[in-house]
Amino acid sequence: MTNGPLDEARAALRPVDEEARRAAAELSDRLTKPRGSLGVVEMLGGQLSAVARACPPPVPEPVAVCVFAGDHGVVAEGVTPWPQEVTAQMVANFAGGGAAINVLARQVGARVLVLDVGVATDIGGVPGVLARNVRRGTANLARTAAMTHDEALAALAVGVTVARDAVAGDGPSMPGARLLVCGDMGIGNTTASAALIAALTGGCAEDVTGRGTGIDDATWTRKSAIVAQAVRRLHGDADPITVLAEVGGLEIAALAGLAIGGAALGVPVLLDGVVSGAAALVAAALEPAVIGYLIAGHRSVEPGASAALAHLGLRPVLDLDLRLGEGTGAALAVPVVQSAARILGEMATFDSAGVTDKDEATAG
Amino acid sequence: MTNGPLDEARAALRPVDEEARRAAAELSDRLTKPRGSLGVVEMLGGQLSAVARACPPPVPEPVAVCVFAGDHGVVAEGVTPWPQEVTAQMVANFAGGGAAINVLARQVGARVLVLDVGVATDIGGVPGVLARNVRRGTANLARTAAMTHDEALAALAVGVTVARDAVAGDGPSMPGARLLVCGDMGIGNTTASAALIAALTGGCAEDVTGRGTGIDDATWTRKSAIVAQAVRRLHGDADPITVLAEVGGLEIAALAGLAIGGAALGVPVLLDGVVSGAAALVAAALEPAVIGYLIAGHRSVEPGASAALAHLGLRPVLDLDLRLGEGTGAALAVPVVQSAARILGEMATFDSAGVTDKDEATAG
Repeated sequence: MTNGPLDEARAALRPVDEEARRAAAELSDRLTKPRGSLGVVEMLGGQLSAVARACPPPVPEPVAVCVFAGDHGVVAEGVTPWPQEVTAQMVANFAGGGAAINVLARQVGARVLVLDVGVATDIGGVPGVLARNVRRGTANLARTAAMTHDEALAALAVGVTVARDAVAGDGPSMPGARLLVCGDMGIGNTTASAALIAALTGGCAEDVTGRGTGIDDATWTRKSAIVAQAVRRLHGDADPITVLAEVGGLEIAALAGLAIGGAALGVPVLLDGVVSGAAALVAAALEPAVIGYLIAGHRSVEPGASAALAHLGLRPVLDLDLRLGEGTGAALAVPVVQSAARILGEMATFDSAGVTDKDEATAG
Repeated sequence: MTNGPLDEARAALRPVDEEARRAAAELSDRLTKPRGSLGVVEMLGGQLSAVARACPPPVPEPVAVCVFAGDHGVVAEGVTPWPQEVTAQMVANFAGGGAAINVLARQVGARVLVLDVGVATDIGGVPGVLARNVRRGTANLARTAAMTHDEALAALAVGVTVARDAVAGDGPSMPGARLLVCGDMGIGNTTASAALIAALTGGCAEDVTGRGTGIDDATWTRKSAIVAQAVRRLHGDADPITVLAEVGGLEIAALAGLAIGGAALGVPVLLDGVVSGAAALVAAALEPAVIGYLIAGHRSVEPGASAALAHLGLRPVLDLDLRLGEGTGAALAVPVVQSAARILGEMATFDSAGVTDKDEATAG
């Protein structure tokens, strides 16, 4: 099967611009502050410059939070106390503006796009939900492949297309996004994420399986065993699409597509927790150059999230003991990311402000 | 000496409202998210409720960043490579809008108030700087008391008055602040802060003395020895004003006053790094009930900042390897703090959104 949007995005993707990152470091050293004193903010400024291929980089706004929803057949194994119907209920809650991600997006001036890529029930009638359903929930990954190879590709293409449309915008009333935020909803999706993370980082199931939205010891033991067993079905040399189809999820595939699509368009992509971390591993396995465009919004409580970030070499911006998903941790990090660009674009230099530079003074 | 504003604020101060904090926890458990899944954001929501004595609490805005500037006689000991003139130059930079704090305040929609409480040179002519000078820089705390008891009280009163004026506002064009952010500028002020932190927490000079804006090993050793020696001059039972006068700074005293003044008015006070951490210790030593109103914006690289926060029992919101001061780390934390109030005020409940509640479902 050919995959137009995905293949096009992969072909268009290029590494971030290391020269712009160096220019940012040089500019940062001339700004009226001790060198390096803005820590992670300076690091982010360098990355935004590298992504934008310009220093100073534009402030990354408008912001689009893309919340992909999908269901998971593995819930039949009792890996979560939440009934599957909650996925669709929460999608309606997103569309109605009452969920945590809606509130946090309002705080930071971001739009929320709600996308049904794999909800188990027909939610076509819910206004405000973009219908991109590839399949009504995955199969039970504890027993069989979660989806077919073609379904995985189709869900990846959904993500690429959503990135493209969000960045293109829709006229003056809805200008194109310059920062894409990963969001997810799917009862059972921390199980699929743990399986992907174990498969793609080589980590132990026990080390990357977490308690998701809150499960007891017996449920965790069952969940962890399911993850281990599912990963054992994979050959060590399985290609990323096969891994994704076997143990992944439709919303995870779409998020991987969003990352590739955003990166191909030169737009930074802000990761949330364990689900977008798993998606980022898939994207990076397909196209390692994606990593340069990824910013880790926060360190989730889920151990798999930390394993994914470590594998990708990403340092999270926030660490607030969050385990909600939806894009909430990433949305909270948006102002810090935007601040990093503003610092490079708006601060005075020692010269322009007439402030004595310690290192110049010492040298002189 | 009587001290009108300080005495009035101390008399007006009352403990935060623990009943409102409990109401926030109860409300938070009914919102459409797994219980506790917003981690530190939920904790902040409880604190904002306790401070406002209401649940949900109002979103804490407008925001005023109060940057107090003061000079330090201890720079004569060579504790920093930056010349003292940089304090006044940076005050002009703040007034001109080109410093890091100006940029970060614009990102979060905050006002910046620039206050000369102890700059060594006459900067009366700089527009945009509020003239509150108590003394033109402290004496050298390595040799003698940094200031007199009366000067310490006067600088504390400046902070109380700034809090009162900022919260009162100035008509519809400048409504009163509902969140006060601590900012500081003063070459040499990490030395005074380390001395205050050592004296008020009982910590070792070596453990609480940091590298400030960036010093080499020889300078750090000298700085640490000066801190140890200055603290040894204090009797173990010295009252907080005496400690402040002996080893503190004018901008640090004003920040302690800001904290007391804000708390007395029921407004949360957002701490920045090591300088406002030292000021918070002074404020808490005078009035322990202040602590309930304090939010730690971030964990500075300075070891003294962590010692102060541990002593106060505060968990920082951000941890971004910052060591700039000016209020920068606190300003970056503002959107997270505001988000905590919004979550309680704007999220749907399980009932209102028609979402199945796991715990209700399990119980039923």
